[in-house]
Amino acid sequence: MPPHPLIECVPNLSDGRNSTNIEKLAQVIEQHDGVALLNVDSDFDHHRTVITFAGTPEAVGEAAFQLTQAAVECIDLNTHQGVHPRMGALDVLPFVPLDGATMEDCIQLANQVGKRIGASLKIPVYLYEAAATKPERQNLAHIRQGQFEQFSEKLQETEWQPDYGPTQRHPTAGVLAVGARQPLIAFNVNLNTNDLELAKEIAKQIRHSNGGLPHVKALGFPLLHRGLVQVSMNMTNYHSTSLFQVFESIEKLAADAGVTIAESEIVGLTPRQALLDVGKSYLKLATLTDSQVLETRIEEVFDHD
Amino acid sequence: MPPHPLIECVPNLSDGRNSTNIEKLAQVIEQHDGVALLNVDSDFDHHRTVITFAGTPEAVGEAAFQLTQAAVECIDLNTHQGVHPRMGALDVLPFVPLDGATMEDCIQLANQVGKRIGASLKIPVYLYEAAATKPERQNLAHIRQGQFEQFSEKLQETEWQPDYGPTQRHPTAGVLAVGARQPLIAFNVNLNTNDLELAKEIAKQIRHSNGGLPHVKALGFPLLHRGLVQVSMNMTNYHSTSLFQVFESIEKLAADAGVTIAESEIVGLTPRQALLDVGKSYLKLATLTDSQVLETRIEEVFDHD
Repeated sequence: MPPHPLIECVPNLSDGRNSTNIEKLAQVIEQHDGVALLNVDSDFDHHRTVITFAGTPEAVGEAAFQLTQAAVECIDLNTHQGVHPRMGALDVLPFVPLDGATMEDCIQLANQVGKRIGASLKIPVYLYEAAATKPERQNLAHIRQGQFEQFSEKLQETEWQPDYGPTQRHPTAGVLAVGARQPLIAFNVNLNTNDLELAKEIAKQIRHSNGGLPHVKALGFPLLHRGLVQVSMNMTNYHSTSLFQVFESIEKLAADAGVTIAESEIVGLTPRQALLDVGKSYLKLATLTDSQVLETRIEEVFDHD
Repeated sequence: MPPHPLIECVPNLSDGRNSTNIEKLAQVIEQHDGVALLNVDSDFDHHRTVITFAGTPEAVGEAAFQLTQAAVECIDLNTHQGVHPRMGALDVLPFVPLDGATMEDCIQLANQVGKRIGASLKIPVYLYEAAATKPERQNLAHIRQGQFEQFSEKLQETEWQPDYGPTQRHPTAGVLAVGARQPLIAFNVNLNTNDLELAKEIAKQIRHSNGGLPHVKALGFPLLHRGLVQVSMNMTNYHSTSLFQVFESIEKLAADAGVTIAESEIVGLTPRQALLDVGKSYLKLATLTDSQVLETRIEEVFDHD
């Protein structure tokens, strides 16, 4: 049985190319007592690796700190070039409440770990989403504006003083966002074209901040080694805007430009319900209930005995 | 925790209209020790109710017999008219192996229960699918040909002597097919038209026996009280032919006739994987693995501890 309470942690690291580094970083988690490595997802074009792990709050906090330390030792942002925006060696460190855990538990953990990283590793730390200390820091994209290169200046501004750690950018590891949030889906849709402007235009049309779909963040990227372009998204509330809606919207906007979808991908993990909901929407199963899923129903009737 | 071994039973009863009857029959299962009622799905047009329940082999066998007895008491096939083919008050009684159970367990149970029903309730019983005693009895549709009305004659033929019970049709309860099979999906797609010929033509195009999709049985029905028509299917191997393929095929054939799909429905329960596979196909998630589903992955890593 999984530990209870269970917290998930989804560190995003700024290396998607050096397999020695990636393996070393994954091993920090894999060999850490009390946490389980759930997924490692590296992307060459993004030059980024998303690790997913879970465990008790204490074990997850300790493992997250050890991983940050290891990332500082092997990643140098001064030579990093990838299509995904980034500001730190360990770029983002979110904690997610799973079974038996609350958002409050995650906010507390983000503060503990953020404080320790700031003090011990001399990295400026911004708390984001549910852990944010100011409304303008809830949105990660807003914090990251200017990226690694501009944080020396950004840290001079009163508005951008970090929540923890020094007011100077770490020379190689930059700055870090530590947060607490609900599960999100990192969802990328690859288009059968090398027209980067189209990917950027579609991203602009669907992203919430430009009046598009609620709880959708989107950017257009080139996938140089494949000759395609990508609409890369974070879906922060798949109950509000579903995978089906996002895919259908992109398909329509691409079709208007005579372009088809090559394939899509989920980075890391997805909550099961998000995929089940796609099946339900596509098949127009208007009246299907969760209790009509055999395994769900068997859990319902037998597990409360 | 569910009992182990666990067997599912999915009796199809020839009443989808008399709510007093349906409730009485469902209560036979609900009040039976050692089994859990999973689902009751009644259809007015089909004039049929599908009950799903599960438990240990012994309890499921006993409950199935009690249900058959209750069905004989309250359903008379002489006055039954529905769009779905039927030959008995309890029409079909399949056993399905779930966790820890084998097909052999279900075949044995089908024989025990079939023999008892034949002897005690004087109903001719045909064993079908994995429990069939002759190749031509594997296919339920073939056994049911001629329906209730023609079984007095059919039972005279050497070829159609029952596996258990008398060689005379029960005067009100007809005959019964008892079987052992893998989970199937009863999937209906409703078309935005009252053109019954179109539903029948599409059913013919997609059903396996006419050279269509493997493991798909299909019929075209009118839904008189809604003014629509329905392609009604049993999908006996959703790994081989998926819900996505079936829906996409029907959508195309209907579109060729200028008709759209109103909605679809799953009768009773569906295995979870069948719905997840639809999400994966629709979103073109070419590389998605089962381990990228959060809940599945958490079970994987923590449950073997």
